[in-house]
Amino acid sequence: MLLHLSTWAEVGQYLERSRSIVVPIGSNEQHGPTGLLGTDWLCPEIIAHEAEKSADILIAPTFNIGMAQHHLGFPGTISLRPSTFIAAIGDWTRSLAVHGFEKILFLNGHGGNVASIEAAFSEIYAEASFAKRRSGFALKLCNWWDLEGVGELAREQFPTGHGAHATPSEIAITQWALPETIKTASYAPQIAPSGPIRDALEFRARYPDGRMGSDPGQASQEKGGALVKLAAQSLIREMDAFSRESVPD
Amino acid sequence: MLLHLSTWAEVGQYLERSRSIVVPIGSNEQHGPTGLLGTDWLCPEIIAHEAEKSADILIAPTFNIGMAQHHLGFPGTISLRPSTFIAAIGDWTRSLAVHGFEKILFLNGHGGNVASIEAAFSEIYAEASFAKRRSGFALKLCNWWDLEGVGELAREQFPTGHGAHATPSEIAITQWALPETIKTASYAPQIAPSGPIRDALEFRARYPDGRMGSDPGQASQEKGGALVKLAAQSLIREMDAFSRESVPD
Amino acid sequence: MLLHLSTWAEVGQYLERSRSIVVPIGSNEQHGPTGLLGTDWLCPEIIAHEAEKSADILIAPTFNIGMAQHHLGFPGTISLRPSTFIAAIGDWTRSLAVHGFEKILFLNGHGGNVASIEAAFSEIYAEASFAKRRSGFALKLCNWWDLEGVGELAREQFPTGHGAHATPSEIAITQWALPETIKTASYAPQIAPSGPIRDALEFRARYPDGRMGSDPGQASQEKGGALVKLAAQSLIREMDAFSRESVPD
Amino acid sequence: MLLHLSTWAEVGQYLERSRSIVVPIGSNEQHGPTGLLGTDWLCPEIIAHEAEKSADILIAPTFNIGMAQHHLGFPGTISLRPSTFIAAIGDWTRSLAVHGFEKILFLNGHGGNVASIEAAFSEIYAEASFAKRRSGFALKLCNWWDLEGVGELAREQFPTGHGAHATPSEIAITQWALPETIKTASYAPQIAPSGPIRDALEFRARYPDGRMGSDPGQASQEKGGALVKLAAQSLIREMDAFSRESVPD
Amino acid sequence: MLLHLSTWAEVGQYLERSRSIVVPIGSNEQHGPTGLLGTDWLCPEIIAHEAEKSADILIAPTFNIGMAQHHLGFPGTISLRPSTFIAAIGDWTRSLAVHGFEKILFLNGHGGNVASIEAAFSEIYAEASFAKRRSGFALKLCNWWDLEGVGELAREQFPTGHGAHATPSEIAITQWALPETIKTASYAPQIAPSGPIRDALEFRARYPDGRMGSDPGQASQEKGGALVKLAAQSLIREMDAFSRESVPD
Amino acid sequence: MLLHLSTWAEVGQYLERSRSIVVPIGSNEQHGPTGLLGTDWLCPEIIAHEAEKSADILIAPTFNIGMAQHHLGFPGTISLRPSTFIAAIGDWTRSLAVHGFEKILFLNGHGGNVASIEAAFSEIYAEASFAKRRSGFALKLCNWWDLEGVGELAREQFPTGHGAHATPSEIAITQWALPETIKTASYAPQIAPSGPIRDALEFRARYPDGRMGSDPGQASQEKGGALVKLAAQSLIREMDAFSRESVPD
Repeated sequence: MLLHLSTWAEVGQYLERSRSIVVPIGSNEQHGPTGLLGTDWLCPEIIAHEAEKSADILIAPTFNIGMAQHHLGFPGTISLRPSTFIAAIGDWTRSLAVHGFEKILFLNGHGGNVASIEAAFSEIYAEASFAKRRSGFALKLCNWWDLEGVGELAREQFPTGHGAHATPSEIAITQWALPETIKTASYAPQIAPSGPIRDALEFRARYPDGRMGSDPGQASQEKGGALVKLAAQSLIREMDAFSRESVPD
Repeated sequence: MLLHLSTWAEVGQYLERSRSIVVPIGSNEQHGPTGLLGTDWLCPEIIAHEAEKSADILIAPTFNIGMAQHHLGFPGTISLRPSTFIAAIGDWTRSLAVHGFEKILFLNGHGGNVASIEAAFSEIYAEASFAKRRSGFALKLCNWWDLEGVGELAREQFPTGHGAHATPSEIAITQWALPETIKTASYAPQIAPSGPIRDALEFRARYPDGRMGSDPGQASQEKGGALVKLAAQSLIREMDAFSRESVPD
Repeated sequence: MLLHLSTWAEVGQYLERSRSIVVPIGSNEQHGPTGLLGTDWLCPEIIAHEAEKSADILIAPTFNIGMAQHHLGFPGTISLRPSTFIAAIGDWTRSLAVHGFEKILFLNGHGGNVASIEAAFSEIYAEASFAKRRSGFALKLCNWWDLEGVGELAREQFPTGHGAHATPSEIAITQWALPETIKTASYAPQIAPSGPIRDALEFRARYPDGRMGSDPGQASQEKGGALVKLAAQSLIREMDAFSRESVPD
Repeated sequence: MLLHLSTWAEVGQYLERSRSIVVPIGSNEQHGPTGLLGTDWLCPEIIAHEAEKSADILIAPTFNIGMAQHHLGFPGTISLRPSTFIAAIGDWTRSLAVHGFEKILFLNGHGGNVASIEAAFSEIYAEASFAKRRSGFALKLCNWWDLEGVGELAREQFPTGHGAHATPSEIAITQWALPETIKTASYAPQIAPSGPIRDALEFRARYPDGRMGSDPGQASQEKGGALVKLAAQSLIREMDAFSRESVPD
Repeated sequence: MLLHLSTWAEVGQYLERSRSIVVPIGSNEQHGPTGLLGTDWLCPEIIAHEAEKSADILIAPTFNIGMAQHHLGFPGTISLRPSTFIAAIGDWTRSLAVHGFEKILFLNGHGGNVASIEAAFSEIYAEASFAKRRSGFALKLCNWWDLEGVGELAREQFPTGHGAHATPSEIAITQWALPETIKTASYAPQIAPSGPIRDALEFRARYPDGRMGSDPGQASQEKGGALVKLAAQSLIREMDAFSRESVPD
Repeated sequence: MLLHLSTWAEVGQYLERSRSIVVPIGSNEQHGPTGLLGTDWLCPEIIAHEAEKSADILIAPTFNIGMAQHHLGFPGTISLRPSTFIAAIGDWTRSLAVHGFEKILFLNGHGGNVASIEAAFSEIYAEASFAKRRSGFALKLCNWWDLEGVGELAREQFPTGHGAHATPSEIAITQWALPETIKTASYAPQIAPSGPIRDALEFRARYPDGRMGSDPGQASQEKGGALVKLAAQSLIREMDAFSRESVPD
């Protein structure tokens, strides 16, 4: 069930049978010579929407702009500062809590979001902790590549050149879902360099075409489809377990 | 051209021929018994993506959560506070400005966003004004129903019961674009009441099914299609004029 | 009754008979070759203080600095950023709410304030909406030129050259109230240009003497007096209606 | 010269002969059984406007709402939080700096403002200090009762029962300037208690009629007039010295 | 009892017999040619830890970075902006209040902290005041040099050249506690100049070696020891009185 | 070299030979029945001060309060919210950058700090990235248990019951450095439970004595000493490598 294609009454009915929701969250940022700028929010959206087809889970609209300050040296990147990102995640979460959602899973598509999302969770919980009350909800961050079995499959598919940014696995997923957007390029070097991430100009100096440690040329629609199918099933199990988890008094 | 389906290099090439971009912006909030929660961000997205098919304009990802605090009494509504919304619009804008965009048009789908978007523009311009420098870009807010000819068509299509929220025109647009999501309900009263907007609980007390002054039952796919086609053409002309506008020294 | 010339006990007694208050709010900014920098806060103050003479209404001190970032290119302009303005309106409102005021009308004298005042209202209401409680008060924004009959009179007095900034109507009001401050100048062109409002340097480039679309030379004390008398009576009726308005449970 | 009754061109001319300005700043808060709620902003305004009559000094509009959280237990008090107050003082100051003001004296009428005003100054200077540049202006806080000779006169006029809040000296000043607002009451005890200042409810419990250590019954118009005349002359000398002060390279 | 060397259970037991705590607070900033950068946080820490040896008082960890923007022109200075400082003091205080501490004394070692600490107190109290509830705790700021008898002793020890920054009294205290860190230098002039404090570059231009009005060459371990012993005893009495102070209903 | 025991001139001289600095950073929070509240800031301080004895590295004062909202259910815990923590880390970093430090390593002692520290780094870098300039410095987060060889040693020392909070390794370190503070208790169960971390009340319900997965009874001074010696040497190598790292143009 996609929240944005439902009415408020339909969401009200859903809340009578479940208090859980998935929020796809990513980033809009450069993904090398062939990767789509939307890759990091498209991937969790694609996986969540796939999962929703075979399970009674509720998917929120996609949080599509994340923490990508280091990619601002490449045209098309849009970034929130961590402080803005934390405030926005807070307002999304508090809105969902108003309606009674108690288990909110953020399905994340961007490694650079992780720290800020976790900081956001602490910021939200701190309101309850300083007030000596229970927050009333549980927040979970889950990167799609950490869903059960997905990392193993990606390592099998791409034993070398997976890398950390503009990876063949994420590009394969968008190729599967959006075949009309497949781009090609010759990569030089075939596997991009690795190193630290700091400000945007240093990033561009270190990683001239935007890739980090990856060879996106290995991506294929078929591999992408396999990843999506597996990730969707794992997400359904993850949500089932999360929904069942009881919180001690 | 859809930014999120492009590479950074493609956006770089676009910037050589144009410095303009459209950002669809809306809200995810209750829209009465039959309206989709996503209505307000789907409408500008639908219009912008339609326009993009017949003109060389660049469309940013959709800013899908807006200022909807008054709708929080209805399940599924997600709202940013004005302060969060202003911060986020600022970061989107500054990101685009980093890349050299000089004309940024926010195509808006939610009346409740207007004040906060304009306040955000002033907040951004103020940085330049306090620093005694030019900002280097022009921001424009355009509600899709204010695009040339669109309001007239809507008034013609819906001479009574158009109202202010969950209007038949916006619902018609989502019906045209997403026919599989069409919902039906009986409305009582046929035309919803009107009045002020304050906090969420007062809103729900005043407008029990979420509509304000509207009769969404008049919506049809056909009317929606006519609105979209007209709005898309007006948006193209609007962007053309905005792009050509010169700024005095 | 002017709050700042009353004791706390007198305000306490007033609260036993009424829960309503008027807050004059404006801006301190350039108003062309002859307009006073204080025009936009003086006008609502003059009207509110005139109304207070013939009705039992309570007038707060004047909120005299508003959102005028675009006028910072002209000496004497003092502006708050929207974020500061929103925070300050919030603290004024919460202070009044502590005392039990339930109907707070901001009588505004500056068009550039409108978006930020409305955003401030939403920011304040959002506290209640996110907490699932009623705010306990109603906020209303009323521009003095939108008071019943006032716009009509101004259009009658100034059929051409009224414009949008440094208008003859607002200058007439200060001429009537503060005749010793009347200034004269020759205007070239007689009616100033119109156009968009962005950052301060662009504003000064577009509007070299500060006026927008106006011919302030048409102002007179007599016209100002007529506007004030009418506006004061309309304000009294507006406050009466606002005070009587009931809020649904 | 009163800034709000001047045009931008007049302020521009003033800036050619002086870079100094006085900002009267106070608070709107309870002042005991007979003191006006506006006492703390009226006093510096009265003194500054008196000084302006006999010297070429420029007076900004009055900053009329300050840090008065501890008085919120009494009707009519309006307070900014320190964080809001600091932000607003920052925007006033940065606005004046845009125009080239280099010496900005805040003439303060409320002891409770002192810490927040000084914190605001540090917040503003810190922008320059962190950027390794000069701020370009000097800020000075001057309480009216600390102007040369004023404290001595007040101690002479009121050897006992001057106290710390709702003092006879400040009430005398408003009596002199606004004789139509003089109120009377019997005070019990004649001299109010003293003690610490914390939150608003504790304040009201400690100081039931709002006074702290004072006997306002000793105020008179005559004493107020003497205080104003002396303070105005001292302010003129203070501004003269401040204007002449050179800043080392 | 030093909180950081205790377990949570030990603090829990302490709270059964006392609700009071001391927070040493200072700054890390240049202290002239011979003063330690840590002087301003070491002094209150030394005094508080000395006091703790002979009384059952609880000492929090030292808040070691304060408001020192004006010292940023000298290597090694670390400063918080007032806004950050206020936020941090708020979080410390709210944390202690969660545990039931009702009397929190900040023993301060830096004059430049005073305004921001007091503003922080008002910011914290304002939460209660705006919510019409009691805060539940009392905050007290106490500079170590204002502890009973300490100022008198310092004036006796250093009748001339005590000054305002890098004073012989504070340097003597670190000499007594940390004799291995004693530094020497020749001072020119022997007594440093005095004047205003603004931004960091102006500060360094006015006070080239960092001292203000002081001759630190008069410091000695012996004098430092006498100051510490006296201050520690005064602090114990101060805490005893503060702990006993009752708050009216 | 300890910054707080140095003069500004000594730090100035250090900057001529090195642009690197270590900032010990931790948290003040409950550490189970026997762990000190200061454990998480004491450990990195102990290691850094040990390293400083045998290498020319500069150690900043210890950042002793971190993100510990989940521990607020236990007396003595003091926590910053992530937003405050991020602001404070920003001001520390910007202060150090003013002086020319180019390599700033935060030696961290609290796992709960990691997300907020990394978010803080991104917040700081974003200033440069949005301004299209280089930041001029590199920030590195290093948990002491991730220093080369340290994790291996801890796993060897504590093959079972190391856990995630109140671990025998961190307690061993404080036992070695502060033997007079060693506490004993009987643990039930011997190894504490594991699970998620959310708000403070849920945390206390899940982990009644404060430990997570650990058996601190295995700690010994001897093991602590071995950990400190190894960590100090690894830190020296880490700083050496970090100092030498060149940043591409």
